[in-house]
Amino acid sequence: MRLARHGDSGSERPLIGNAEGAWFDLSSITEDITPRFLAIGLDSARAALESESLAAVTDVRRFGPPLTGIGKIVCVGLNYRAHAAETGATPPTEPILFMKAPDTVVGGNDTVYVPRESKKTDWEVELAVVIGSEAAYLSSVDDAAGVIAGYAVSNDVSEREFQSERGGQWDKGKNCATFNPFGPWIRTADDIADPQGLALRTWVNGELRQDGNTSDMIFGVYELVHYISQFMTLYPGDVINTGTPAGVALGSNGKFPFLAAGDVVELEVDGLGRQKQTYAQA
Amino acid sequence: MRLARHGDSGSERPLIGNAEGAWFDLSSITEDITPRFLAIGLDSARAALESESLAAVTDVRRFGPPLTGIGKIVCVGLNYRAHAAETGATPPTEPILFMKAPDTVVGGNDTVYVPRESKKTDWEVELAVVIGSEAAYLSSVDDAAGVIAGYAVSNDVSEREFQSERGGQWDKGKNCATFNPFGPWIRTADDIADPQGLALRTWVNGELRQDGNTSDMIFGVYELVHYISQFMTLYPGDVINTGTPAGVALGSNGKFPFLAAGDVVELEVDGLGRQKQTYAQA
Repeated sequence: MRLARHGDSGSERPLIGNAEGAWFDLSSITEDITPRFLAIGLDSARAALESESLAAVTDVRRFGPPLTGIGKIVCVGLNYRAHAAETGATPPTEPILFMKAPDTVVGGNDTVYVPRESKKTDWEVELAVVIGSEAAYLSSVDDAAGVIAGYAVSNDVSEREFQSERGGQWDKGKNCATFNPFGPWIRTADDIADPQGLALRTWVNGELRQDGNTSDMIFGVYELVHYISQFMTLYPGDVINTGTPAGVALGSNGKFPFLAAGDVVELEVDGLGRQKQTYAQA
Repeated sequence: MRLARHGDSGSERPLIGNAEGAWFDLSSITEDITPRFLAIGLDSARAALESESLAAVTDVRRFGPPLTGIGKIVCVGLNYRAHAAETGATPPTEPILFMKAPDTVVGGNDTVYVPRESKKTDWEVELAVVIGSEAAYLSSVDDAAGVIAGYAVSNDVSEREFQSERGGQWDKGKNCATFNPFGPWIRTADDIADPQGLALRTWVNGELRQDGNTSDMIFGVYELVHYISQFMTLYPGDVINTGTPAGVALGSNGKFPFLAAGDVVELEVDGLGRQKQTYAQA
């Protein structure tokens, strides 16, 4: 099943979607899609969907972020071999971790703002993992699937000069306002038989730029969850952006320009829907 | 005035403190010390304190973190010249930024857990800046003071091997559970005439380890707020850990051991109170 939030920014209402693409009002089951709902509410939501008792919603105007109250966003760097190569980096021997603040999250189709003084705003389509249960020091990779509530599309928008040429630590180029379009929806983990077989694509102004597959990850989703849990505690509602495949502006040696006001970026992951953002100047 | 939260973890109640060190119940004014309260509630809290109408609280058992609902914690690296030197780093030409997740925050006197497999858990006393108003692209350093709600003590606990020897980006060694003791209280900005004249100290098992002063910061508090606002939007309830002075284990060339279960760390900043943590094994 799919979980979403629709309506104006700040007053979104919860939705649940079936396999046929229809949406239903979930507000009789939960006030909102929150970390607590992911931890304890999925079974009752599924039962309500299957009972066909929920009111259909046919006028979805705007998808907000499909989760409110995100605690932290852990991001993985250089996790696709071809992307590491295009940026001139050596493939990492263990996952590179950095952070995005939850306040960077916007809906998948919301406006993204190119920061002032930015010359190198770049796109990164990613498979986002949404945590459903607390995970600390998982004893094996086999325990990882059980703490994942679902998956979504993330655009890990990045300002490359801020990230790498302004004195240290990538976070500086990863946390500009609106830099994490997320959604349009969360697909629950029971719908994703294998997270390592999903195609990811990005188009800029209609031209295909990224065309990868999660099968090319250096560290797979379950390995990442297990690994991260050795360094920090993952809580329900935390999100992991699992890295981007090749095809970003940074790796194109000037062939593809960085983003500017007026550009339109579309991003999709198999089974997780498509984002479409128009860029504006901050 | 001072703001605090006391009681058991997860059910803390708000307190307000006067200049003489007495505490009063603030729950008639606000349910909790939240970002929204910092943004709109300080004047009414001050008026209530001055009216002497609040009930005295004489049985403070445990200080929780003095703020709930922290949105993000932006940390500044190598911001004291002597600390940069002791770690073998070149002093930065512009601030180094990294992130701690709000879920790392515990009360100033709570237990801190040394991570499993940790060999290099280290202390860092810091002046924490608590934001009270939204700040994006501040036009000058002079605008920074107006967005600061107050100040507190932070211990930016750090696992040095995770931070620097495990494949990249400091966040990996900064986000272990319990790694940000915060408090015991927030002192509102009107009480701090000059944030660049505060002594900071750390003792480990009673021995003085750090003995610095915020006058030695490379980038001062107002410069940092102005600078960070060019890269990310600061919101009420965000926290900035402004860097640590010299005297950490990392910089001692083996003279001072890293932390282990049973160690007791005390940290204080002039006017902001003192923390005392006992370390335990995760």
